[in-house]
Amino acid sequence: VNFDEIPFPDDEARAAARARQARLTKPAGALGRLEELSIWACGVQGQCPPRPFNRIRALVIAADHGIAETGVSAYPPEVTAQMLLNFSSGGAAVNVLAQLQGVGVRVVDVGVMGTPSEDKIREGSGRIDTEDALTAEEVERALATGVRLADEEVDEGADLLILGDMGIGNTTVAASLIAALTGSEPVSVTGRGTGIDDNGWMRKTVAIRDALTRLRQALGGVPPLGPDAAITALRVLGGADLAVMAGLLRQAAVRRTPVLLDGVVICAAALVAEQLGPGAQRWWLAGTVSPEPAQALALQRLGLPDPLVDLGLRLGEGSGALVALPILTAAMATLEQMATFDQAGVSERTA
Amino acid sequence: VNFDEIPFPDDEARAAARARQARLTKPAGALGRLEELSIWACGVQGQCPPRPFNRIRALVIAADHGIAETGVSAYPPEVTAQMLLNFSSGGAAVNVLAQLQGVGVRVVDVGVMGTPSEDKIREGSGRIDTEDALTAEEVERALATGVRLADEEVDEGADLLILGDMGIGNTTVAASLIAALTGSEPVSVTGRGTGIDDNGWMRKTVAIRDALTRLRQALGGVPPLGPDAAITALRVLGGADLAVMAGLLRQAAVRRTPVLLDGVVICAAALVAEQLGPGAQRWWLAGTVSPEPAQALALQRLGLPDPLVDLGLRLGEGSGALVALPILTAAMATLEQMATFDQAGVSERTA
Repeated sequence: VNFDEIPFPDDEARAAARARQARLTKPAGALGRLEELSIWACGVQGQCPPRPFNRIRALVIAADHGIAETGVSAYPPEVTAQMLLNFSSGGAAVNVLAQLQGVGVRVVDVGVMGTPSEDKIREGSGRIDTEDALTAEEVERALATGVRLADEEVDEGADLLILGDMGIGNTTVAASLIAALTGSEPVSVTGRGTGIDDNGWMRKTVAIRDALTRLRQALGGVPPLGPDAAITALRVLGGADLAVMAGLLRQAAVRRTPVLLDGVVICAAALVAEQLGPGAQRWWLAGTVSPEPAQALALQRLGLPDPLVDLGLRLGEGSGALVALPILTAAMATLEQMATFDQAGVSERTA
Repeated sequence: VNFDEIPFPDDEARAAARARQARLTKPAGALGRLEELSIWACGVQGQCPPRPFNRIRALVIAADHGIAETGVSAYPPEVTAQMLLNFSSGGAAVNVLAQLQGVGVRVVDVGVMGTPSEDKIREGSGRIDTEDALTAEEVERALATGVRLADEEVDEGADLLILGDMGIGNTTVAASLIAALTGSEPVSVTGRGTGIDDNGWMRKTVAIRDALTRLRQALGGVPPLGPDAAITALRVLGGADLAVMAGLLRQAAVRRTPVLLDGVVICAAALVAEQLGPGAQRWWLAGTVSPEPAQALALQRLGLPDPLVDLGLRLGEGSGALVALPILTAAMATLEQMATFDQAGVSERTA
């Protein structure tokens, strides 16, 4: 994949937003983080005041993971395919939350076992404790698929993207990638996922440890920094879903399209994408705090501000980002629509 | 005012909600606090699944405060009246945020200086460091006004209320009430309000100290617990807005109508209302963390769970509750609309 360069958000629009914030009829800073958010929105939209989003799209990237067979999840692997049907019939959390806010949902099956899909990179992925998740060719194809998905969405008018994940075993893969790219220990990144018990947690930690050992061998002592190492990490740790997401996140930035990040799986892909194209993170916003410990490590490394909501959400599917979305739109609406001191004839501060 | 008894939320509906949550197509607990919220909503609505709110109303209670003349705010007192005009022309944060979510706004001027209003208890209130905020008769009238406002809204079909505040100096009054009812020191409750400097903060702390001394004298050594002491606290510390809100909050509970609380001023009124009718707090939800230190003391005493959002919001007007509202509606929608494991044919946990 030949990636294009990452553009910068619009500094003039940001400056105009900051100036306008200071003129709104409220004490300076009284809208707290909504003020920063509105400035960020102006930067990525390249205009002040910001415009309401016209077409927000949630892309749920689904794949199976070979590591699931080792009992790292509380749920059997067939749940991934079953959930695809649940998405189609509109019964999953992402469907309900997206509909509530007029967000279109697109489920992209890039690696689920036993399901038909034109976007499939492969069925499942390697057991990462003993084998590579993907081949080098599959990584390339997955990144290209991510680029194509971003292009398709932006070409159809999407002006905000939300990424979601579905795949039994995917927090094991996400935690491995985050450990690799932040230099963290397995015990620091391993969480309870869908709700595993202590034995499951130990199996998961061991799987992550073994996967990281394999990656170190594959990198031959080179630190996991930069695009080549990121591509190696995707090959060794995978899976197809993470690679597609990484390509998609990077290309969304190329296309000047902001992304509201979800939980630990999307943040792992974002960490990889930032290695593929430094500066992409300027186009992203963290939506939701994940109880998975790896997420905070990823966000810290990305230099992103704290997520907008902290409600113990750990479902994935993009659900956390969808819960956070109204905070972003509220921030934008206040900057766009509130009266200024002059307009309203309100006195300014005296002390 | 003769208050009616506070009813209990519906325990059967709560139990049904808890059982339904366990059947939804997601790992148990994966929707975090949204699950608790959906159960709370079923309790206050008396049904499971919950129904979307049909008529949400934001009531902004506005009044001036005599203490503002002592320089406890960064803004001059005339801003209260100016903001009433801003509310009328739709330029304030509450207007923008309410419109975004289809919430109706009603501004009730119960004590602004120099403005016409049928709901006025009095113009301004006493300087609480040296005189009572209200007379006993004014407290009675304000509580009755609050009861009437709640009744009017519920009779017109409101099924969720949001309270907002507007009044230069009102965080000084709110902090005094919270200090009195939680037994806290002035320095523990005094915040920066609209953004005062260190000198302003010292003036504010001294005003609160003097006001609390006056309340102790008025109570004659009796601890500030129970309805009589709460009414004395409203008389000494006021003001008209806080008393109206307290009556309104209590009566909303009588009418089985939930309220989403905003910042420190509304939480001060809630603390008073709970003294007027223990159990009213079961009908309330804390929307937003205030940087004012008194708010956490009030919420802790009320036994309410942490607010839904923590975004540094400190504007009042009900703006924080409006930013939090979509989280509650998202919680209710998931419980109402998500498919169950049986419906979707999804396997349940194996480990």
